[in-house]
Amino acid sequence: MTVAGTDAFVDELRAHSRRYHDQHPFHARMNSGQLGARQIRGWVINRYYYQVAIPRKDAAILSNCPDREVRRRWIRRITDHDGTAPGEGGIEAWLRLAESVGLDRREVEQERQVLPAVRFAVDAYVEFARSKPWVEAVASSLTELFAPDLMARRLAAFERHYPWIDGAGLAYFRERLDRAPRDAEHALELVVDRCRTAEQQDRALAALSFKCDVLWSVLDAIDRAHPD
Amino acid sequence: MTVAGTDAFVDELRAHSRRYHDQHPFHARMNSGQLGARQIRGWVINRYYYQVAIPRKDAAILSNCPDREVRRRWIRRITDHDGTAPGEGGIEAWLRLAESVGLDRREVEQERQVLPAVRFAVDAYVEFARSKPWVEAVASSLTELFAPDLMARRLAAFERHYPWIDGAGLAYFRERLDRAPRDAEHALELVVDRCRTAEQQDRALAALSFKCDVLWSVLDAIDRAHPD
Repeated sequence: MTVAGTDAFVDELRAHSRRYHDQHPFHARMNSGQLGARQIRGWVINRYYYQVAIPRKDAAILSNCPDREVRRRWIRRITDHDGTAPGEGGIEAWLRLAESVGLDRREVEQERQVLPAVRFAVDAYVEFARSKPWVEAVASSLTELFAPDLMARRLAAFERHYPWIDGAGLAYFRERLDRAPRDAEHALELVVDRCRTAEQQDRALAALSFKCDVLWSVLDAIDRAHPD
Repeated sequence: MTVAGTDAFVDELRAHSRRYHDQHPFHARMNSGQLGARQIRGWVINRYYYQVAIPRKDAAILSNCPDREVRRRWIRRITDHDGTAPGEGGIEAWLRLAESVGLDRREVEQERQVLPAVRFAVDAYVEFARSKPWVEAVASSLTELFAPDLMARRLAAFERHYPWIDGAGLAYFRERLDRAPRDAEHALELVVDRCRTAEQQDRALAALSFKCDVLWSVLDAIDRAHPD
């Protein structure tokens, strides 16, 4: 088994940015102000299904991880998303975004309008975290390396092109702008530390590819269902 | 489907105390001061395997639970066991107990002396939490209803019969004396609230029976391997 250099491995991980969903035509149209309210709403209501899956995905990683030190840091992701009290956390922030774009909170929470292909992709992500070795599930989270750029562009685009959306509703993106780099740094540290052989590194790269496919498929489905 | 009365259901859950492992001969001998140092050490080293499984079991429940409000409370169990920093938490407290009874911390952490039947029972408990509906996994935790009595008797017994064990090592039991009732109350509330039909209640009772079997089997294995 060859042991690849860490730098080359990190470069390969980072190179997955070319497969990140910021490149998707739907995001391109979002960021250049070409989406209508119906399309934005369709995106928010479907993407909610992804948001609520995240703490369950992270709990699956916790459940599979025998390292207490890793769990102590990873658990913060769940608290970030769920909050520690009603009205707090990332999921709540997403529901406020939903209200800001004119959706009814209850309607979003009911998940009735979630597209089948969005469910399949998101459920596959949770199942990946449940069934694969925890380091691979951590590697799959490394799309967070690319998230801050997209968040920054999205915030600017929303403020410029979609003035009908209340700025208070964008708190979710502002939070992620701070937290994604912290989370990604921890995940990258773990993946580099635990994936030493070429085989382990290949599996980490495959996990990150898989996650890029999940995010891309979610947008494909939303795009197809909301052509205008 | 008949809906059983809540009181009758709670009575049936509580009646499982007769199957709780405080009734096991090994615990009876422990509490009456009849165990030697070797037996106490065998118990501590094997029971460690159960302690480290608990946060993974609780994370599996989190992962299966779609209710954010439930997750916000349940997650505290993981923090209680793992702590938020090195040197904190229930697992650390158990390792200190191990040191107090004369074991080497590293030896305990390596888990090499854990008996096969202890592994099977504990692994079955984690797998139960992973694969069953989360409410059943919550019901399986209800042995905590019976834990405070056993903890109180054990603390008194250790102080009286085993003066060679440093009292500081008993912090784990003191903590559980406070936390088990809080945890059990939340779990009981959830089980009563979510198990309304006779079928749901039967499944909750079966889950609690299963958990009694897990704890009993752990002690059976320890008892058999340490007859004196």
